[in-house]
Amino acid sequence: MIDLPFRPERTSAEPVFRQLAGTLRALIGSGRLAPGTKLPATRELAASLALGRASISHAYDELVREGWLTAHVGQGTFVALGPPGDAAPVRPGAVPSRRFVWAGLFALRARLLSAPRGFAPRGSDPPIRFDFRGGQVDRGSLPGDDLRRAFSRAVARQLGDLSEHQDPRGWPPLRHEIARYLVSRGIACGADDILVVNGAQQAIDLAAHVLVDPGDTVVMEQPGYFGASMAFTASQANLVGVGVDAEGLRTDQLARVLKARRVKLLYTTPAAQSPTGVVLSERRRGELIALADEHQVPILEDDYDSELRYQGPPVAALKTLDGSGQVIYVGTFSKVLFPTLRVGFVVAPAPLLEKMLLARWNADVGTAALSQAALAALLRTGALARHVRRVRKIYAERLRTMVDALARSMPGGTRWTEPHGGLTLWVTLPGGVDAEGVFRAASEAGIAYTRGEVFHFDGRGQSSLNLSFASLPPARIAEGVALLGGMVGRYLPRSARRASSRGRNETHAAIVAGR
Amino acid sequence: MIDLPFRPERTSAEPVFRQLAGTLRALIGSGRLAPGTKLPATRELAASLALGRASISHAYDELVREGWLTAHVGQGTFVALGPPGDAAPVRPGAVPSRRFVWAGLFALRARLLSAPRGFAPRGSDPPIRFDFRGGQVDRGSLPGDDLRRAFSRAVARQLGDLSEHQDPRGWPPLRHEIARYLVSRGIACGADDILVVNGAQQAIDLAAHVLVDPGDTVVMEQPGYFGASMAFTASQANLVGVGVDAEGLRTDQLARVLKARRVKLLYTTPAAQSPTGVVLSERRRGELIALADEHQVPILEDDYDSELRYQGPPVAALKTLDGSGQVIYVGTFSKVLFPTLRVGFVVAPAPLLEKMLLARWNADVGTAALSQAALAALLRTGALARHVRRVRKIYAERLRTMVDALARSMPGGTRWTEPHGGLTLWVTLPGGVDAEGVFRAASEAGIAYTRGEVFHFDGRGQSSLNLSFASLPPARIAEGVALLGGMVGRYLPRSARRASSRGRNETHAAIVAGR
Repeated sequence: MIDLPFRPERTSAEPVFRQLAGTLRALIGSGRLAPGTKLPATRELAASLALGRASISHAYDELVREGWLTAHVGQGTFVALGPPGDAAPVRPGAVPSRRFVWAGLFALRARLLSAPRGFAPRGSDPPIRFDFRGGQVDRGSLPGDDLRRAFSRAVARQLGDLSEHQDPRGWPPLRHEIARYLVSRGIACGADDILVVNGAQQAIDLAAHVLVDPGDTVVMEQPGYFGASMAFTASQANLVGVGVDAEGLRTDQLARVLKARRVKLLYTTPAAQSPTGVVLSERRRGELIALADEHQVPILEDDYDSELRYQGPPVAALKTLDGSGQVIYVGTFSKVLFPTLRVGFVVAPAPLLEKMLLARWNADVGTAALSQAALAALLRTGALARHVRRVRKIYAERLRTMVDALARSMPGGTRWTEPHGGLTLWVTLPGGVDAEGVFRAASEAGIAYTRGEVFHFDGRGQSSLNLSFASLPPARIAEGVALLGGMVGRYLPRSARRASSRGRNETHAAIVAGR
Repeated sequence: MIDLPFRPERTSAEPVFRQLAGTLRALIGSGRLAPGTKLPATRELAASLALGRASISHAYDELVREGWLTAHVGQGTFVALGPPGDAAPVRPGAVPSRRFVWAGLFALRARLLSAPRGFAPRGSDPPIRFDFRGGQVDRGSLPGDDLRRAFSRAVARQLGDLSEHQDPRGWPPLRHEIARYLVSRGIACGADDILVVNGAQQAIDLAAHVLVDPGDTVVMEQPGYFGASMAFTASQANLVGVGVDAEGLRTDQLARVLKARRVKLLYTTPAAQSPTGVVLSERRRGELIALADEHQVPILEDDYDSELRYQGPPVAALKTLDGSGQVIYVGTFSKVLFPTLRVGFVVAPAPLLEKMLLARWNADVGTAALSQAALAALLRTGALARHVRRVRKIYAERLRTMVDALARSMPGGTRWTEPHGGLTLWVTLPGGVDAEGVFRAASEAGIAYTRGEVFHFDGRGQSSLNLSFASLPPARIAEGVALLGGMVGRYLPRSARRASSRGRNETHAAIVAGR
């Protein structure tokens, strides 16, 4: 029997049978599986590769259709005697007989990557009618005129300078405007303390690059931002989760973790915890800073949406409490403007900023200069501040609408957070609900949301979901949540269905999934 | 004697004495060095840290001035009894007594990063009068009107869609235009084979991420693009250089390397070798593909400037010869438009592209959508093709001017390449020239160029320099090169100075530094 050099890539979007077919094609094309060779029976190969028998059959069938293999009833499957004819799906210009084998060449950190939420290009079948997925903003209120003017002027007046600018920290006028804005928020910094990056994700990945060696321990909230856990995982970090409750990150749990092991980095989203929207309380902020100081652990503060705050007193960033210079502060314009703008920034102490600068140059040299110049103009002229004031009102109303709709539509036992800021909230379904069934039914009805698992690196979160209230007008939010509530009701366990009453809004309730 | 937890970061821009002072400040501030503790004598500490005594003295002096230490003549240096007073240089809002110690926290890959060429923000002292550094384009010929129109229209007509677009491969209309353009160049691909990235550097870094594990061998040209060696070094690759001569990459050397060891990736710049500008010959192309196929090594083809070709028959990309799907093709708009646009692309076989997509999302989600839409319009309307035709003439003239000026101005024994494409050429000074002296004199006279060492990861290249002819008009090129030629003459070894005659243009001469 042949010894097949094949290991399925289970995280790949390519079905396993396709992967197997690709390997076989390559082995045959390159002559390593000679014409006439008998292939193992499907049952045999399935057992030796620990795969389902159907995968093997599918792969064989595909290759028989393409002419690579021949099947003889009662005898088995064989490598064809000649190269496949016209039936093989050959790309124009390609030589069909040898395909390069990429399997097995991927580096460990590439094998550690798995697809984040919303990664696949949007399908249209069934069409999405109610889009509650995160990462979107209200497209109706985008400041189109201001943006058009800002880009036009940047091209007309500054193109020469912008085309040549090579300061790896970013376009100086933008860093100057960001510093002015941050100082107004109590963060002591100057333009030279700032590194412009392509949004918060790049800042997080750079911090991981610069600080995390394989095996280093990184602490983050659970549930927590999937982009952060992805970056730390790719850096081969040992991730430790700390729960979230009504006051935000649980500092009591953090204290225990910090006592138990050496932590290299603490990642947190204090302004509106991602994904729950909970604000880290004043008391916890002090505790968190004190713990980080006691254990000399750097804090990566992802302040991705601090401008989007709808109620309660404004809360100062951790960075404002950072006397010793151990907080790496990350901001972005993805939420106050739009995510595909790809401009964010980092404020960090000089020794770290210098390393991040180098890592950033290595990653992609710098942020698009025209975007930086346009954004600098929006900040300087006050257009961005006006825009933020406008959308704050819009989002506050949408949040209220969503919370009211949840209270009206969700069966008893459902709980949700009522954020003071951000663009999403976190719903935990009643115990025993078939969350998979709800998700399927919702998808079929055109309701899209992000499942709780996405925000857990530890496999939990199945009974939770993350709803964004950003992209739909209030009436549509109410309509979509009502539909969703009905579905949750239908997937309650039978015992609960009769007893079901209306859910209640547990403002700042403890979040089960994070415990 | 105290045991000082200090290891100088020699690659840091921060002087060692500052690093030491920082550590001491942190140790004192946190109480780990108690008030009254006697510090080691400078001589003693210098020996134990393998540092110069001056570094220790500078550090002590700074801390005495700041009040952290007190010095008693004849007795030594002591930790001060109280926290430092107002003399300490405290940033507003910061607590002076404890500075977080970043030293020692950096990950290995961050420690492997060193600054690329032109990394420091441009100084203005002395002002640069003749800028021959690479990475620039002719700012006078930028298509400002076309760009302004393209951005304005993208904002006015597509902002909503652009703000929401989440296809991780890039804005579909741009991928479509890129595919059309590539097919016209003989590269068989469709929009789905393309990943839009932030320029060639990101493509190279992603390929390194996805394919290179620590210790893997990567082959590249020497001299070769410093951004590539930086990315591979950060991935802890074992870099092997292959020389370059008049026909480009030396396939005979490559064959020996491939026989001697298992190679994970071959990086090459065949269209106009970076930095020499030499074109890989037809014969070598065939040999290179055959070698890569024989040894089953993927090729990373950086076709960064294939559009900028001034003479000779057009040369097909390696990708057009890629029957088996083992060439990763990288293109960029940095050279034909301008580098701070930050848009490039990768064409790669599906299994690899899928991994690169994930790595790319993890790095920074996606490329700025407005830049993508504007570029798609420039491609669709033909504005970009018109621009390329215009600048090709401009650069061809500048290249001729530079080559003529070198022939007129350089002392005998100087050699240079005469590229058929690209934006730079490579000059090798006569043996024995004090290249450091030339560089200093040139800097003082306001002549900027990139030194040959920058394009070598093995410490060679001292006697070479890289000159870009892109950013200055012909008359200024001639003037600057004449000045530079005089300087080279002055730094010839005394024996050679008398014998010096004019240099000669060795078209496609063998490049000494690359051997």
